[in-house]
Amino acid sequence: MSEQAFQDTYADGLSHCYGCGRLNEHGLQLKSYWDGDESVAVITPQAYHTAVPGFVYGGLLASIIDCHGTGTASAAAYRAAGRAMGTSPPLRFVTASLHVDFLRPTPIDGPLEVRGSVKEIKPRKIVVAAEVTAQGQVCARGQVVAVLMPDSMLPK
Amino acid sequence: MSEQAFQDTYADGLSHCYGCGRLNEHGLQLKSYWDGDESVAVITPQAYHTAVPGFVYGGLLASIIDCHGTGTASAAAYRAAGRAMGTSPPLRFVTASLHVDFLRPTPIDGPLEVRGSVKEIKPRKIVVAAEVTAQGQVCARGQVVAVLMPDSMLPK
Repeated sequence: MSEQAFQDTYADGLSHCYGCGRLNEHGLQLKSYWDGDESVAVITPQAYHTAVPGFVYGGLLASIIDCHGTGTASAAAYRAAGRAMGTSPPLRFVTASLHVDFLRPTPIDGPLEVRGSVKEIKPRKIVVAAEVTAQGQVCARGQVVAVLMPDSMLPK
Repeated sequence: MSEQAFQDTYADGLSHCYGCGRLNEHGLQLKSYWDGDESVAVITPQAYHTAVPGFVYGGLLASIIDCHGTGTASAAAYRAAGRAMGTSPPLRFVTASLHVDFLRPTPIDGPLEVRGSVKEIKPRKIVVAAEVTAQGQVCARGQVVAVLMPDSMLPK
């Protein structure tokens, strides 16, 4: 796996996301890495991230697919440009659309692994497919259409 | 609007969801109501629910569309059956698939309104379309395919 998490290369002003920002002390702080051509993140849900007792609520799965998708898009854009991640100007992506299929109830007692793969890459649009696995079973599959962050969202 | 929130009619054992359970003290506690043939919920994001400063992170929008969708599905199923919401056996729905299109950055400083409309209704499958509005602008549009909760998820 790559050594530094994608999200830990984001500039400070772009590191406040509830899902993945290293500076958001209330947030999930998702960390994504390359594992060959795939990206991977592992996160352990809190007991209160439940849908019904024993299972993870869908919003958490959607959130980690979303942030893992935009992180993977950013990493893929840097890789395609032959640039080290985090160098300026930033290649930071936001989600244009998110789709999640919930395949089976996701057990809450243990880590969730989300793996991403790049399906399409253009300078301003990257499509990432993602799968969430718990206890050896794929519980959710998703797709993120990520677009380069518009100037209107960049911190002043 | 209807007087009691859909989620406040769920049985105790089905009221722990992080997104909408009245018994989840860490959660969002989304409350959805009928407004004629549409359903509506209003929620004010916390400052830490941010993507980048000033804007809501997508996972929150996905979460509220998800829980508003399953809540609307439950309410629609009771209404179609001519039953008061919350009566047994429970008509509680879970998400089979979730789709969200993020149309523009969603401002974080103020309430978000999510409105739902039922697009398809069958005994075990209900499709709900949803729109999230902030400061008078539709910022996200989504769709939830909700299915009757499987016995494997029901609390013992």
